[in-house]
Amino acid sequence: MKPVKVGICGLGTVGGGTFNVLQRNAAEIARRAGRRIQIEQIGMRRPNPACDTKGMHVTADVFEVATNPEIDIVIELIGGYDVAYKLVMTAIENGKHVVTANKALIAVHGNEIFAAAQEKNVMVAFEASVAGGIPIIKALREGLSANKINWLAGIINGTGNFIMTEMREKGRDFQDVLAEAQALGYAEADPTFDVEGIDAAHKLTILASIAYGIPLQFDKAYTEGISRITAEDVKYAEELGYRIKHLGISRRTAQGIELRVHPTMVPQQALIANVNGVMNAVLVDGDAVGQTLYYGPGAGAEPTASAVIADVVDVVRTLTADRDNRVPHLAFQPGELSDAEVLPVDQIESGYYLRIMAVERPGVLAHITRILGDKGINIEAITQKQTEEAQVPVILLTQSVKEEKMNQAIREIEALPDIVGEVVRIRVEHLGQ
Amino acid sequence: MKPVKVGICGLGTVGGGTFNVLQRNAAEIARRAGRRIQIEQIGMRRPNPACDTKGMHVTADVFEVATNPEIDIVIELIGGYDVAYKLVMTAIENGKHVVTANKALIAVHGNEIFAAAQEKNVMVAFEASVAGGIPIIKALREGLSANKINWLAGIINGTGNFIMTEMREKGRDFQDVLAEAQALGYAEADPTFDVEGIDAAHKLTILASIAYGIPLQFDKAYTEGISRITAEDVKYAEELGYRIKHLGISRRTAQGIELRVHPTMVPQQALIANVNGVMNAVLVDGDAVGQTLYYGPGAGAEPTASAVIADVVDVVRTLTADRDNRVPHLAFQPGELSDAEVLPVDQIESGYYLRIMAVERPGVLAHITRILGDKGINIEAITQKQTEEAQVPVILLTQSVKEEKMNQAIREIEALPDIVGEVVRIRVEHLGQ
Repeated sequence: MKPVKVGICGLGTVGGGTFNVLQRNAAEIARRAGRRIQIEQIGMRRPNPACDTKGMHVTADVFEVATNPEIDIVIELIGGYDVAYKLVMTAIENGKHVVTANKALIAVHGNEIFAAAQEKNVMVAFEASVAGGIPIIKALREGLSANKINWLAGIINGTGNFIMTEMREKGRDFQDVLAEAQALGYAEADPTFDVEGIDAAHKLTILASIAYGIPLQFDKAYTEGISRITAEDVKYAEELGYRIKHLGISRRTAQGIELRVHPTMVPQQALIANVNGVMNAVLVDGDAVGQTLYYGPGAGAEPTASAVIADVVDVVRTLTADRDNRVPHLAFQPGELSDAEVLPVDQIESGYYLRIMAVERPGVLAHITRILGDKGINIEAITQKQTEEAQVPVILLTQSVKEEKMNQAIREIEALPDIVGEVVRIRVEHLGQ
Repeated sequence: MKPVKVGICGLGTVGGGTFNVLQRNAAEIARRAGRRIQIEQIGMRRPNPACDTKGMHVTADVFEVATNPEIDIVIELIGGYDVAYKLVMTAIENGKHVVTANKALIAVHGNEIFAAAQEKNVMVAFEASVAGGIPIIKALREGLSANKINWLAGIINGTGNFIMTEMREKGRDFQDVLAEAQALGYAEADPTFDVEGIDAAHKLTILASIAYGIPLQFDKAYTEGISRITAEDVKYAEELGYRIKHLGISRRTAQGIELRVHPTMVPQQALIANVNGVMNAVLVDGDAVGQTLYYGPGAGAEPTASAVIADVVDVVRTLTADRDNRVPHLAFQPGELSDAEVLPVDQIESGYYLRIMAVERPGVLAHITRILGDKGINIEAITQKQTEEAQVPVILLTQSVKEEKMNQAIREIEALPDIVGEVVRIRVEHLGQ
């Protein structure tokens, strides 16, 4: 059979990895795909020293790739929203299939992109946009297609997980570990996207759409970072039998869909609590299958390339398929998306860990427990730590309660005369354990 | 679009689960597949009290289903080799696509079945045959299609993992836990298939074919069970920082393919060492992606049904695809299978744990280490345990060595006058850690 011709736009980390793996494993990939994948053109501003592009058809203008009549599949690996959006839309208009690793683009502009692709009868594949090399989109979209998905929870940002792992294993502070992550190249100079959960929220938005068949709604995701987690809270969590992970969580409830990224205390013995360093993992609960977990490297040149190329092979396989029989972009047929509402964060339910700094005075515990009791919030554990200071931390674990109620309780506790500063609150999830 | 008509053969545990999930999640599945999956006929000997088949088209003769001109896809869930083989071949001859959960059938007769399917231009899908609800075949065959797979290692028998978990957590003996597993329904009255590794070898045979593109060669798999593992060895492994798991391991080497099921000591902190109870997990190492792991329930009515139905949806999607663009049965195009040899077990390389019962007499350690040293086998750790008995266990960990050499060393050690009985040998794998 004729080779399939692809154009790579962007030859940075992921683009370079894709280029190299396509060349190195060309024979292995062709044995699977049934035809050769040929790199017809490369759009790049700067050469990548890891890639030998000698004799290749190279252009500085990525739009040349998107409009090249020879090309079947455009691989978008330039990142960002602006040029990437125009590039993908141009490729679609020109009848090209698109493979992208761009989570921000899909989370924010996916609905329009998929509508345009549907109209033009082309595929837009984006496995590499979530959890790097882990084939989680394929698993969720195809492997679990028999299930009503109940919930999913994922460690989907390697930088954040590296930081949380180091804080726990070595008792270090957030700022200290962040500086090391930046030195190691795991974190950007401006780490906001990673540590404040924006990157994870992009990925969670995509996973939730595929899980429940709802449109992409990144603007409705609740996002809370890990920058305020202290070494102290990490230690108290450990003493209580938990670990703090920066999780993206989405749950289907009778009231609507939860969509939230925040530090979360999970039981120590849970498999996901044992996912360390820069590794990613996604835990999925389906009504038929129960819990399955998918683990692997969430970033890096070749892990991400692995997902990009798997998408290319998948697209090759749909080239002769009837449009109606392709795997739909968001797992559910375009006309079959549900309008289930995404819940505001005060409507979610969760357990809570509270750290309350109190002046050591008789009666303070009684005041706190009365406030919680009045709101119907059940306490699972409470301890008053001994310190040398005048202020002592009161550590509390509650059973599951609506966040709205917890917010009211926290406001009332903070207003008590014996309480110092803000109450620290970390959500607790048992993840079916 | 017209509904797709399926016939279910066998309404036991998995058949019943498939029937119920297809009915319960009919709308969710149709929203994904783009058309309804209609149960046209059921072939069963005995009714399943968990299934309401009132008003359904039921027959006691499964071959009626395989030849029913109304039916598009035959779902084979009767198990075993004989009738199942004839049933699947009859369905193929009649131009039906087939979905099966039957690992023994695929591992032993897969090559002929796939050749017949190729000839008749139909699909035979078998996701449910390995690791129950975990979409591991899809991940390996499609999700990792960019990779040269280096090796894979899996806990692919829930009964065995339940037994090993109980032995470790509670210090119990094999026979004791086996009896409990039988009482709980996790193990059969005749547990041979599970505890001697035959079931795992069926599954490993399938995974290895898909990983490397080699024909199914169940007869070449090395199989060693867990029935000789003692509570003592479990304890010593723990002391050395390892856990004993019953793993299926397949590795691609320059000399050929390793294909082996045996008790294996793995580092305690490895994620796969923390997969407990009846759960399954498969760890895969690919040259681009690195390590990914897939975890979930390996058996049970609805987890297995989840995989069966995902296959049905996949087959529905290929109905209009060109034959050459379908995902090949064994991941690689039929003409592209490799003839890489499966290695005899004495040609594999591995680390070893040895437990040697010695009469406490000066010089015995020196004799043992001399034998190993002469063979070039490096010792990583050696301890002589203190006991009240006249015989003391010598516990040894070696570095990686060819099994052939280790067998010679063990024979020489057993021939020493101060050694009592057989040397206990457990292979040690670091799984890239």
